[in-house]
Amino acid sequence: MPFRLLDAASPAETDQAERFLALVAEPLAATDRLFRERLASDVPFIHHCGEYIFDGGGKRMRPVLLLLCARLLEREGDEEVTYAAVVELIHTATLIHDDIIDHAELRRGRRTINELWGNNRTVLLGDWLYTSAMKMALSHGSVEVIDRLCEATLRMTEGELLTQQRLGAIDLTVDEYFEIVDRKTAQLFAAACSVPARRRPVRLDAIAPLERYGRALGVCFQLADDLLDFTASAASVGKPVLSDLKEGKLTLPLLLALPRLTPSERRKVETVLGDRSFERVAASEILELVRREGTLQEVEQRARALADEARVALALFPDSEARSALEFAPDFVLHRRS
Amino acid sequence: MPFRLLDAASPAETDQAERFLALVAEPLAATDRLFRERLASDVPFIHHCGEYIFDGGGKRMRPVLLLLCARLLEREGDEEVTYAAVVELIHTATLIHDDIIDHAELRRGRRTINELWGNNRTVLLGDWLYTSAMKMALSHGSVEVIDRLCEATLRMTEGELLTQQRLGAIDLTVDEYFEIVDRKTAQLFAAACSVPARRRPVRLDAIAPLERYGRALGVCFQLADDLLDFTASAASVGKPVLSDLKEGKLTLPLLLALPRLTPSERRKVETVLGDRSFERVAASEILELVRREGTLQEVEQRARALADEARVALALFPDSEARSALEFAPDFVLHRRS
Repeated sequence: MPFRLLDAASPAETDQAERFLALVAEPLAATDRLFRERLASDVPFIHHCGEYIFDGGGKRMRPVLLLLCARLLEREGDEEVTYAAVVELIHTATLIHDDIIDHAELRRGRRTINELWGNNRTVLLGDWLYTSAMKMALSHGSVEVIDRLCEATLRMTEGELLTQQRLGAIDLTVDEYFEIVDRKTAQLFAAACSVPARRRPVRLDAIAPLERYGRALGVCFQLADDLLDFTASAASVGKPVLSDLKEGKLTLPLLLALPRLTPSERRKVETVLGDRSFERVAASEILELVRREGTLQEVEQRARALADEARVALALFPDSEARSALEFAPDFVLHRRS
Repeated sequence: MPFRLLDAASPAETDQAERFLALVAEPLAATDRLFRERLASDVPFIHHCGEYIFDGGGKRMRPVLLLLCARLLEREGDEEVTYAAVVELIHTATLIHDDIIDHAELRRGRRTINELWGNNRTVLLGDWLYTSAMKMALSHGSVEVIDRLCEATLRMTEGELLTQQRLGAIDLTVDEYFEIVDRKTAQLFAAACSVPARRRPVRLDAIAPLERYGRALGVCFQLADDLLDFTASAASVGKPVLSDLKEGKLTLPLLLALPRLTPSERRKVETVLGDRSFERVAASEILELVRREGTLQEVEQRARALADEARVALALFPDSEARSALEFAPDFVLHRRS
C-alpha cells in the first residue's frame, strides 16, 4: 500500500482550485491554441511530434501561474498569452532532452519521444522547440522578458548538468541539492511569474515580489515532487515509485535521513545508487528507512514553510481574486497526486 | 594518391586572402575574445568545454563574412562584434549536437565533445550554447536581428532532421539535396551576411542583396565541402575521405552519377549506404565511378556558377575594399583545402 503523507485535496479544495482556474480559463485556452499552432511545422516529423506532445496534455502549471500573475497586475492580453505558451514550450523542450538523458521510457503514462523516435531526432526536436520558443517570445519585442526566459533556460540546463555530474554520488550535500532545485525548477517558475511585470511598461515594483513568489513556489513544487516519488503509486504519477533513486538521484527525504543511518544501511542506499536498480536492495527497504527517520515529515514541513514564504511575497498586492488564487497555488502544489 | 579537382589557392590568392582578412582583423579579434568570454561559466564543466572548443580554433567563416558585410555598410562597432560571436556560437552548438547524432569521434582533427564527455552532457552543452547565443544577441535589443538568427537556427535544425530522415536512402532527389543544403548551411550564411543590414537603423535596401549573397555563398561552400570529401586526404580535413557516404549521406557528386550507373554499380552504392562502411565495397571503387562519370567536374561547375551569383548580388554596392573581399570570398571557399 502506498503510504501517503500530505493529505489529498479535499472536495472543498478541489472546488476552489476549479474556481481559481476558471479565472484564467479563456487565456489558458488561447495559450493551448497557440502552443499547438506553434508545434505545427512544414517538416512532417516536427508536426507529428507536436500533435503527440499536445495530446499528452500536462498540468500547464507554468502558463497558469503566468496568467494569474498577469491578472494580478491587470495585464491580460495577447502578449501574456504568448509568453504563457513560450514558458510551456521551454518546459516541454527541457523535458524532451531530460528524457533522452534519463533514458526515460514513460512520461505522463505515455511512451516518451526518445522511446518512440530515437535519440537523434529527439535531440533535434528539443533544439527546435527551444529556438521556436525564443522566436515566439520575440513577437512582442519585449527584450527584458526574453532575457529573463533565456536566463531561466540557461539555469535549467546548468541544473541538469550539475545533476548529471553528481549522479550516483552518496556525498551530495543538502546545499548542492537546493542549488540544483533552484536552477532546474525554481528559475522557470520565477521567470514565469515575473514575466507579466517585466513586459513593457515595466512594473518595477512587482518584479522582485513575483520573483520571490515563483521561486519559493518552485522549490515547494519540487519538494512535493520528491515526496510523491516516495509516496505515490506508479498509476497516479505515470512513473514508478522511487524512480529518482533508481536513476542515481538522491532527493531530500533520503538526503536528510542519510547521516542518521547505520553504515550498513547507508551501504544499501549506495548499492541502489550504484546498481541503478532494486535488484539487490528492495525499494521497500529504502522506504522503511526514510519512514523510520521521519524525514518525509521534515520535507513536508520545509515545503509548508516555502508555501508560506510564497504567500508572504504577495502581501503588497491589493486583495483580488487573482491574489487569492496565487495564495492558494502552494496548497494545490502540495496536495497534488500527480 | 588523393585526386584533386579544384586548384589549391595560389600564393597570390593566399596573399589576397590575408590582405582581406586584415580588413576585419581587429573586430575579429574582439569577436574571439567575446566568444571565449561567453564560453566561461560558473559551472566548471561548461567552462572546461568552452576552453576546449576555443582552443580547437575553426575557420571563423561566418564571423568573418558578417564583419566584412558590416564594413561594406560602414557599420563596425560593438554591436556587429556581438553578432559575429553569436553566429559562431550558434554554429558551434549545431556542430556539437550534429556530432552526437553522427557518432563523430573527430572534429578538426581533435576528439569531439561527445567522444570525450559522453552524449548526455553534450546534449546539455549544446542547449546551453544555443540559449547563451540568443541571450548574447539580445544585449543590443535589435529584435529583427535575433528573429533572423532564430529563423536560421530553426532551418538548420530542420535540415538536420531531414538529413536524418533520408539517411541511407538511395532515392534521395537532387531537389531534396538542395533543400537540405539550403536549410542546413545556406541559411546561417545568409543570416550572418544580412545581420549588419538588419540591425537598427535598418538598411532595407541592403537586406535582400546580402541575403542572396550569403545564400549563394553558403550553397557554394557546401558543394566545395562535398567535393573535398571525395578529393581530400584524411590529414588535411581532419576526417576520413568519403565520410559522408559512410554516414549514409548521399552528396551531389554521387547523386548526379547515380542515374548513369549500371544496376550492379548502383547496388555497390546501396551496399555502402546500408553497411555504413567500406568493408564490402572499397571507397576506391566508389571514387572511380564518380570519376568516370565526371560529376566532380559538374559539381565544380555548379559551385562556380554559385560563386558568380554571389558576386552579382554585390553589384549595387559601391566599390570598396570590403566589396572586393566579399567578391573574393567564393574563390577562397572553392580553393580551401580544409
